[in-house]
Amino acid sequence: MSVEFFKDVPQIVYNRDANIDETLCFKFYNATEVILGRPMEEWLRFSVCFWHSFRGTGTDPFGQATIKRSWDDGTETMDNYKRRLEAAFEFFTKLGIKYWTFHDRDISPEGSSLEETNRNLDEMSDLALNLQRQTGVQLLWNTCNLFAHPRYSNGAATNPNAHVVAYAAAQIKKGLEIGQKLGAKNFVFWGGREGYNSLLNTDLHLEMSNMANFLRMALVYKKKIGFKGQLLIEPKPKEPTRHQYDYDAQTVMSFLRQFNLHNDFKLNIEPNHTTLAGHGYEHDVVMASTLGILGSIDANTGSPDLGWDTDQFPMDIRACTAVMLQVIRQGGVQPGGLNFDAKVRRESTNTKDLFIAHIGAMDSFARGLRNAAKIVEDGIMAKYLKGRYISFESGFGLKIATGLTDLEECEEFIRQHGEPETISGQQEHCEAIFNRYL
Amino acid sequence: MSVEFFKDVPQIVYNRDANIDETLCFKFYNATEVILGRPMEEWLRFSVCFWHSFRGTGTDPFGQATIKRSWDDGTETMDNYKRRLEAAFEFFTKLGIKYWTFHDRDISPEGSSLEETNRNLDEMSDLALNLQRQTGVQLLWNTCNLFAHPRYSNGAATNPNAHVVAYAAAQIKKGLEIGQKLGAKNFVFWGGREGYNSLLNTDLHLEMSNMANFLRMALVYKKKIGFKGQLLIEPKPKEPTRHQYDYDAQTVMSFLRQFNLHNDFKLNIEPNHTTLAGHGYEHDVVMASTLGILGSIDANTGSPDLGWDTDQFPMDIRACTAVMLQVIRQGGVQPGGLNFDAKVRRESTNTKDLFIAHIGAMDSFARGLRNAAKIVEDGIMAKYLKGRYISFESGFGLKIATGLTDLEECEEFIRQHGEPETISGQQEHCEAIFNRYL
Amino acid sequence: MSVEFFKDVPQIVYNRDANIDETLCFKFYNATEVILGRPMEEWLRFSVCFWHSFRGTGTDPFGQATIKRSWDDGTETMDNYKRRLEAAFEFFTKLGIKYWTFHDRDISPEGSSLEETNRNLDEMSDLALNLQRQTGVQLLWNTCNLFAHPRYSNGAATNPNAHVVAYAAAQIKKGLEIGQKLGAKNFVFWGGREGYNSLLNTDLHLEMSNMANFLRMALVYKKKIGFKGQLLIEPKPKEPTRHQYDYDAQTVMSFLRQFNLHNDFKLNIEPNHTTLAGHGYEHDVVMASTLGILGSIDANTGSPDLGWDTDQFPMDIRACTAVMLQVIRQGGVQPGGLNFDAKVRRESTNTKDLFIAHIGAMDSFARGLRNAAKIVEDGIMAKYLKGRYISFESGFGLKIATGLTDLEECEEFIRQHGEPETISGQQEHCEAIFNRYL
Amino acid sequence: MSVEFFKDVPQIVYNRDANIDETLCFKFYNATEVILGRPMEEWLRFSVCFWHSFRGTGTDPFGQATIKRSWDDGTETMDNYKRRLEAAFEFFTKLGIKYWTFHDRDISPEGSSLEETNRNLDEMSDLALNLQRQTGVQLLWNTCNLFAHPRYSNGAATNPNAHVVAYAAAQIKKGLEIGQKLGAKNFVFWGGREGYNSLLNTDLHLEMSNMANFLRMALVYKKKIGFKGQLLIEPKPKEPTRHQYDYDAQTVMSFLRQFNLHNDFKLNIEPNHTTLAGHGYEHDVVMASTLGILGSIDANTGSPDLGWDTDQFPMDIRACTAVMLQVIRQGGVQPGGLNFDAKVRRESTNTKDLFIAHIGAMDSFARGLRNAAKIVEDGIMAKYLKGRYISFESGFGLKIATGLTDLEECEEFIRQHGEPETISGQQEHCEAIFNRYL
Repeated sequence: MSVEFFKDVPQIVYNRDANIDETLCFKFYNATEVILGRPMEEWLRFSVCFWHSFRGTGTDPFGQATIKRSWDDGTETMDNYKRRLEAAFEFFTKLGIKYWTFHDRDISPEGSSLEETNRNLDEMSDLALNLQRQTGVQLLWNTCNLFAHPRYSNGAATNPNAHVVAYAAAQIKKGLEIGQKLGAKNFVFWGGREGYNSLLNTDLHLEMSNMANFLRMALVYKKKIGFKGQLLIEPKPKEPTRHQYDYDAQTVMSFLRQFNLHNDFKLNIEPNHTTLAGHGYEHDVVMASTLGILGSIDANTGSPDLGWDTDQFPMDIRACTAVMLQVIRQGGVQPGGLNFDAKVRRESTNTKDLFIAHIGAMDSFARGLRNAAKIVEDGIMAKYLKGRYISFESGFGLKIATGLTDLEECEEFIRQHGEPETISGQQEHCEAIFNRYL
Repeated sequence: MSVEFFKDVPQIVYNRDANIDETLCFKFYNATEVILGRPMEEWLRFSVCFWHSFRGTGTDPFGQATIKRSWDDGTETMDNYKRRLEAAFEFFTKLGIKYWTFHDRDISPEGSSLEETNRNLDEMSDLALNLQRQTGVQLLWNTCNLFAHPRYSNGAATNPNAHVVAYAAAQIKKGLEIGQKLGAKNFVFWGGREGYNSLLNTDLHLEMSNMANFLRMALVYKKKIGFKGQLLIEPKPKEPTRHQYDYDAQTVMSFLRQFNLHNDFKLNIEPNHTTLAGHGYEHDVVMASTLGILGSIDANTGSPDLGWDTDQFPMDIRACTAVMLQVIRQGGVQPGGLNFDAKVRRESTNTKDLFIAHIGAMDSFARGLRNAAKIVEDGIMAKYLKGRYISFESGFGLKIATGLTDLEECEEFIRQHGEPETISGQQEHCEAIFNRYL
Repeated sequence: MSVEFFKDVPQIVYNRDANIDETLCFKFYNATEVILGRPMEEWLRFSVCFWHSFRGTGTDPFGQATIKRSWDDGTETMDNYKRRLEAAFEFFTKLGIKYWTFHDRDISPEGSSLEETNRNLDEMSDLALNLQRQTGVQLLWNTCNLFAHPRYSNGAATNPNAHVVAYAAAQIKKGLEIGQKLGAKNFVFWGGREGYNSLLNTDLHLEMSNMANFLRMALVYKKKIGFKGQLLIEPKPKEPTRHQYDYDAQTVMSFLRQFNLHNDFKLNIEPNHTTLAGHGYEHDVVMASTLGILGSIDANTGSPDLGWDTDQFPMDIRACTAVMLQVIRQGGVQPGGLNFDAKVRRESTNTKDLFIAHIGAMDSFARGLRNAAKIVEDGIMAKYLKGRYISFESGFGLKIATGLTDLEECEEFIRQHGEPETISGQQEHCEAIFNRYL
Repeated sequence: MSVEFFKDVPQIVYNRDANIDETLCFKFYNATEVILGRPMEEWLRFSVCFWHSFRGTGTDPFGQATIKRSWDDGTETMDNYKRRLEAAFEFFTKLGIKYWTFHDRDISPEGSSLEETNRNLDEMSDLALNLQRQTGVQLLWNTCNLFAHPRYSNGAATNPNAHVVAYAAAQIKKGLEIGQKLGAKNFVFWGGREGYNSLLNTDLHLEMSNMANFLRMALVYKKKIGFKGQLLIEPKPKEPTRHQYDYDAQTVMSFLRQFNLHNDFKLNIEPNHTTLAGHGYEHDVVMASTLGILGSIDANTGSPDLGWDTDQFPMDIRACTAVMLQVIRQGGVQPGGLNFDAKVRRESTNTKDLFIAHIGAMDSFARGLRNAAKIVEDGIMAKYLKGRYISFESGFGLKIATGLTDLEECEEFIRQHGEPETISGQQEHCEAIFNRYL
């Protein structure tokens, strides 16, 4: 990296001298500070996503590109692709972020044939490998873009045309190979077009069955080539399709179990998708973790009053605390991480905004981690929770919890013990306690 | 039934002389008319729900009771419960509806102990059995109300207090016995309080595990007593709880598979719940049917602009057609049916409104059935659909659809065949064709 | 128009011989058939929108262009712009639609300066004028695109930079001139970027005040040049901004009254926007009409389960009937019309889909008109409604309705007459009656 | 008050010794501490609402009462009503809250005639007056319940039956008199049933006109009796009706302006209603304040993933900060306040939960106030905002902002100055800055 693209931005550090622009330093994120026995950077395995931050130009359904970058001349040349990648690694380094993520088509242009496309990808991934080695930045996950090209307009794995399914499969093959080459910790499937827009022209049964076959081919090939990354599915309820088959954590789990894939796939949970599915912000993080399939997190947010994916930088301290509390409870998300699948607003046209947004989000999650660690250390909330369910730890409650009783015994228990006593749910108490850690 | 409660309402019949109030006759529903080889009444196994139509008084979160009935003096006496039941059977008969549904606590008052409560239920179910025999009306399903009593405020099967779980289990035991006594075709579980209001005070893992144990106890007891009814779970995403564990069809399926209960339970799908979960009206009917677990349907609707369960009478011809199309495709919903889990608006205070609402909804579903039958008979839509997926019926597509290929073969296929051709999804075409049957 | 672009599509006519593809003929729309004293085409002043149907390429936030047209080579040359326009007028003519609508930037490319941009627009509008004369197709309305260009990313009339506001004003000036030149019946303002994404960086008061000044300048100039078209504001609650100042009909009315503009502007209501604002489909049509400011309608629909603007072709017969009922009640929407602000799905890649979609929607509205006319002719629903409010036509009710009484007289009335009687709202009755016309 | 109802709860104070249960003391709310020149209690004019906290029993649409209080025997006797009121004033006092609010029917039972009802109200308000004098607690506002009684099921001011309108008017007359007697600072109208459930049976024009006449009668009478309280309308979009005429701040403003009532009414904004209308939490507080009609605030929250009014205690620090920032900007909300229109969850059955919930919410708003004050004092955000709009303070921008230019001058300005420069919207910067105050 001979050229410096972000000349006017310093290396971002913790608690910098207050004279410097305070939005260009961390107030809370201190990578090496030990929290609950681990450095913050191990709890907060942040990654920058390449697509939003280095391919996003600010287009939206009603507007043209607004964002211009000094390193990007807008052409489809390999040189331009390379400059973008170099700028990205400088950015990762200045931020002090140790992981990145990308789609195949972000880093490398589609050619006139699959062969040419793959050659491009070989060349670009060579550069990526070099940059990874130079900087120490690692690949949290890569993924294949099976939704943007017109061939996938009616779906990829679930396309009504077998020819398209084969194309998508060929693309996944290459994606897994690239993942292996770059030492990806995970490989993600987001099925943006795997769903329906109208039930009138859709065969649900065949499409879902084909999707399972598709994932199974990926799993077989992963094992064959010895790729060690964790396979992840990213749920989303809708957008761009009216209904996506991977609606939310439980829906994906149902699908995985139906096709006996649940031991080989985990989930990449994106809270902006969770809220679009009608749940609270942290619901799917907690649900997936409870089901034992929380693999990684896309750290972003939407506006709860909007019905589409805004991919905003996560800035809500309460939400970040709730997420980190669950992450701590399951002992971390490694080999997953916290991927900033977030984009600066299209009005945020300064290059500096890219830093400010990431720093603001990293600080928010650092506050979340600090808060959650304090909650765990104090133990007040855990103790409350244990007490609430204490009746299942012995006696008849234990028989219920372990499935060792039946309806007749239950009836007999009630004949003997009558009406249960009233016990407050104490929700406000819990909220107030939680608030004191924020 | 010595007393006639609906003196001024005639027996409702098909295509009555136009001189009579046209909202008090069927224009489309003709019970015995044969459609696709079956009488309409066999396709449309309508049931009246007892709770809304004979216990509903028009209260809402902001208002007192508005609905007064001649047969209901508002007291908790057994006589009053009996009069309600007799009025209901007169109503079923006048409407020509062959099935009814109820919660245990609708038809019989809670006593001061479980024993007394059960004695009340014995007495009331004796009357119900008599009325069933006299009228030929059958029990589509019964269910236990595990959500209204304060003891269940923190859940029934998922209550943090084992004592409450035992109470709920005892209640289910009686419910299954009553179902068997009355020849119920199905038995329904709706877990209105099985969920959480706050993750801060909830142990998701334990609660879901307890719910599975609870259902397993019911299953064991059902088999022990030889009850033949189908066990059904009714999904709902939320309300009254913030999150219900039975969010939608796929969520319930995930849960059932996790605990190996999926061969013994089917679903009772309510479209008003489906829309609250963020899906289109008929989505869960189609999804459950595709998964092979559509057991019965609660025929109602909400307003798509409202975020709570309004349980309105289904009056949308397009929606009824879409539902009946799927019902025909799976060969009917027997032993399930179409239960009118719908209530007259609290402003609809005339007794006649009760008839008008049911007739309007029955006619809507009769139109839906007639439309759907025509679609099936014409075969145009089915032919279109078959053609759309034809590539999976032979050649490489068949290998994909049957799981007999791998990523490498797919890549080789693309090397040989290159880019797939573009094929229109023709959604508007399908919509226009569909519309011509409405 | 020397070239024929749609060679394989016949002139669309009513009730064509059934041997021809039935989706390429009208089953219900018969332009010259007289309904309630007017030809259908006068009630249904349909217009084709140029942007979706002749500039839409099927891009969405997750996908590239999917739609290719024979007449469009994808270049920014004036020749390409001209071919598109010629193809459009052939399309209007084959469909038998008498009106069209466009944004300035749809029909003509932005140049390197305002002067060049305006020269382009002059040249293209010359062609449009010729095509209008040749075909008899008229301009229902034109509008200025003040949202797509990056200069408008922070708003146009409400931009925090006065320079941008001036630019938008200059663009409106030209837009009004073009409208006058082409004999536009109306001129529309849709403020896609007039709103906020964050309250943290927004001065609501100044922005709304500037918006009023902006509209007033347009009004003054319209009068100065003698442009006769009706000025229309199109409400939308959100998307692309988080909050749009023109949220819905009542919000715009509040704004117009605040700045004393309510006598000079009417509304262009789009039902897909209405549902995004949380209302029922026809709500804003009825509300705007009730407020006396329903100027025109964008005939489209969304999916109620989706939180963004899908601009689908309106195919719901019930919804079309409800809209046309209100249109009939206010005596038509002239000089407005029913503009198909709708796009074929990006998967609908056949050119024929463009016809099928419009025909399906025209037939849906024709059914709506026929149904509504029958409702009006029968008079049953109107009679019911009149009866419901009869108490305000005389006696004390008339005093209340005309504001001629006070609280003390009301109290005295109650002292004398006591409790009012209960009168059913009969909603299900009305729904059932309405259904019989569908 | 001879009896002490909350014996086991101490007087709630700021920063109590940590040995005591920390949820029973204020950590942030310190009534007399001066913030920006005023004691906290003057910025935070908290009121307890009588209905939720002293009449709420935990019923919901699916469940019976769960909450029992020692002072409430559940009867409709005047003695019971009196005990409730005495308990309430003890509660206000222990909390250190200076205001309360009530509906007429909360504090006093409906009799068999209006006369009897009013006599009850006289007797109860005598007691209230005594309790106010003894404790120094004042009445922030009272209101009339025009939605719970069955007579109002089809609306009060907008009922289709004039007799009902008269009844509602008589009730308002008494409500204003009671407000005057008790020195109410404001009087609130919440039109829970003023709206429609179906457009099919509704005359929008007549109903809205009648609503205006109704409010005008109230205004006339208020002036006649010399009542000094501010009249407030509380917007809500829906629930219980499908559409409420007072949808949100702008909708009410439109209505008030239409009927020339906008100088005599202000708004009582409830954020839970704001979010149900599709806006962000603080939107209507800011919008109403911008329009000059923010009169008071109902301090509560909903869950953004739920579509009904949950009336939860406000515990979100970010939200409270945003609200208080606007309150400071407009110089406080006096004579309005922050009314806790919030209820403990029905599972929160301990009496202590009532204290914990209020304390948690008071602390949240105290944190909000402290944060907002710091933001205002620092001036960084204000300075940023001023800079963003600086172009309107002089030159051509000033002409635009003051309405002193026209389209032709704007065009000329662009001819001379060309394209505006790009200026970042810096949303993430603002969010990060804001976060540092939380």
